Amino acid sequence: MKLVVQKFGGTSVANTERIFNVARIVTDTYKKGYNVVVVVSAQGDTTDDLIAKAHEIDLNPSKREMDMLLSTGEQISIALLAMAISKLGYPVISLTGRQAGFLTDSNHSKARIKKVDTERLEKELDQRKIVVVAGFQGMNRYDDITTLGRGGSDTSAVALAAELKADLCQIYTDVDGVYTADPRIVKSAKKLDEISFDEMLELASCGAQVLHNRSVEMAKKYNVNLEVLSSLQDVPGTKVKEVTKMEKMLIKGVAKDDDVVRISVVGLPDKPGIAFRIFSVLASKKINVDIILQSVGRDGTKDISFTVPTDSRDAAVEALNDLMENLGAHRIEVDEDVTKVSIVGAGMQSNPGVAAKMFEALYEADINIQMISTSEIKISVLIQKELGIKAMNAVSEAFIK
Amino acid sequence: MKLVVQKFGGTSVANTERIFNVARIVTDTYKKGYNVVVVVSAQGDTTDDLIAKAHEIDLNPSKREMDMLLSTGEQISIALLAMAISKLGYPVISLTGRQAGFLTDSNHSKARIKKVDTERLEKELDQRKIVVVAGFQGMNRYDDITTLGRGGSDTSAVALAAELKADLCQIYTDVDGVYTADPRIVKSAKKLDEISFDEMLELASCGAQVLHNRSVEMAKKYNVNLEVLSSLQDVPGTKVKEVTKMEKMLIKGVAKDDDVVRISVVGLPDKPGIAFRIFSVLASKKINVDIILQSVGRDGTKDISFTVPTDSRDAAVEALNDLMENLGAHRIEVDEDVTKVSIVGAGMQSNPGVAAKMFEALYEADINIQMISTSEIKISVLIQKELGIKAMNAVSEAFIK
Repeated sequence: MKLVVQKFGGTSVANTERIFNVARIVTDTYKKGYNVVVVVSAQGDTTDDLIAKAHEIDLNPSKREMDMLLSTGEQISIALLAMAISKLGYPVISLTGRQAGFLTDSNHSKARIKKVDTERLEKELDQRKIVVVAGFQGMNRYDDITTLGRGGSDTSAVALAAELKADLCQIYTDVDGVYTADPRIVKSAKKLDEISFDEMLELASCGAQVLHNRSVEMAKKYNVNLEVLSSLQDVPGTKVKEVTKMEKMLIKGVAKDDDVVRISVVGLPDKPGIAFRIFSVLASKKINVDIILQSVGRDGTKDISFTVPTDSRDAAVEALNDLMENLGAHRIEVDEDVTKVSIVGAGMQSNPGVAAKMFEALYEADINIQMISTSEIKISVLIQKELGIKAMNAVSEAFIK
Repeated sequence: MKLVVQKFGGTSVANTERIFNVARIVTDTYKKGYNVVVVVSAQGDTTDDLIAKAHEIDLNPSKREMDMLLSTGEQISIALLAMAISKLGYPVISLTGRQAGFLTDSNHSKARIKKVDTERLEKELDQRKIVVVAGFQGMNRYDDITTLGRGGSDTSAVALAAELKADLCQIYTDVDGVYTADPRIVKSAKKLDEISFDEMLELASCGAQVLHNRSVEMAKKYNVNLEVLSSLQDVPGTKVKEVTKMEKMLIKGVAKDDDVVRISVVGLPDKPGIAFRIFSVLASKKINVDIILQSVGRDGTKDISFTVPTDSRDAAVEALNDLMENLGAHRIEVDEDVTKVSIVGAGMQSNPGVAAKMFEALYEADINIQMISTSEIKISVLIQKELGIKAMNAVSEAFIK
């Protein structure tokens, strides 16, 4: 029998009306003869409310107790959704993350799934029950409740789809698919019928919010057929898979990431090994460096600039300050007035003109490029922050027909 | 090392301030050198809120899913209380009912505890951690979450105290002990220093709300030293134990139960076996009959009257209607305008004047007694409903000095 895993986020189960909406989507699938496993997140603001309760007691509570607390959110959702499905007249059972067999490591608040023991879940499916599973949570080997951190419910759904060898894993959300850019800020944005795992990964790491990287990485690793679609509108979504059919569209997405600062080490002596020392000390502090630019100054010194996520700024500056005297550099400059705009698409590998076309579009829009970084399927540029939306629109219009 | 089990109800953990209040009571006990196991209920209105959510979906939801839903209430409480205890600087861990080892039968929504496997709990105590346990909940042998029904958290606490051979089990509540009568309606009510298990049981079944019968029965069976006291005032409570020291007080409590109706079968032939047939049919329907009165009428027929809990009225009348023709009775009368007032006290066993004193007090207050029932340590009378409070005050003033 064919099996579908359907995942619904917090807004999709925020109230009774929406819960019944989800119940209808699920039972419509079941009626067509599929076995259905449903993964749900906590309702709407539940997680925020629980965090607020905890913070009233301690702004820095134990992570184990935080997982104990937050995991109740999904447990409430699964019970209510199971009641709604049952009310519609279908056999159903809810399972917590632990009951569904999610064994994780002990890294509370951002645990990694070690394995999924689906014995019980499969027994329930064999009885033709719809199985409603709490996303985002599992259990470690000490029998303690853990949570998977950001994007955790997507990861739960993909992990189950992989373990159960599901025919399809549908991620229902409040948008109706993956767009070439955020349609709220880019007018020419278009919905994609298909996107490859690699493109989706690059898009996610460039600031697109649809799917969390962990879930896409896992889907790629186990070759799970993913589909992103809306729980509120009955329209086709976007399929995420290993290889997509050739399309005319050179790029699949334009993304913007404001969460980035540029750090420059100015006036370094032009000697070998300088860059190595800078980036090895940053790596040792687990700071993720993105775009790197090295330039030679007129006085024979050189500058090294790079971008880091905003929340790594202080750690990066501190690490570099310790190194400054040793390196003989003049000073460190930090620029927060920057944003990173990226285009992503497997099509650009065989089209050398893509970068030139992007730079031309930015030039025509009078936007100065400060730094450039490229991968096989991605081109990112660093520009002034206030020009970000203008840049996305300019690039989108050049590529998306 | 001495061990204390402390149980706190929903009002005691209703908000952050009260949670810290509980944390201070717990840590004060710990500081004195005790090992402490804390059992908590769901916060204030949480359970009612969750029930309301469920009823929006289905007025008659699956009991298994209801247990899945409601058990989150205590899970929230234990996490928050553990955070508060930790914030005060003490080692602590929270455990769900399952993690604390509560194995129950599969009677969802009113499960019975089959055993408590305290291996993990004791391991945590051995590390001198304060252990915070979710009351009211357990797990059945299918690995499903169950709840214990009314008074469940008290029962959880007593079961843990019994299993761990605790030196004391303290039930913290919003009153400061067990009173001879509800002090809100009986002016002369007094707080008891001590009460025996049997007296407490009779009081509870006569309508006193302090402790649920199941927990008292279990405490009696395993001889657990119980104490009922206030979480809001630091005053001595009431000790509940096997044998209390002799006290001058003849009676320990005056209770009123409005939840009762009188049913009369009128005009029965005066033949042997009639009463037997009536009460055996009621017993087969699991209807709890309390006070029974049989009277002979002038025409040679007899009447049988008895009381049942209000919610058994319809079932009792239906069962009797089926029997009527067969019995040759004239009619069935139902009287809802009654209440049962009881006095309880082990002292009355050796004091034959107790009943007379009670009846005298009621006579002086101009209250007519409709029916009487006595046990070794209890006397109950059925009177008109609107005279209930007057009767309690009259009886209390006669006995409580």
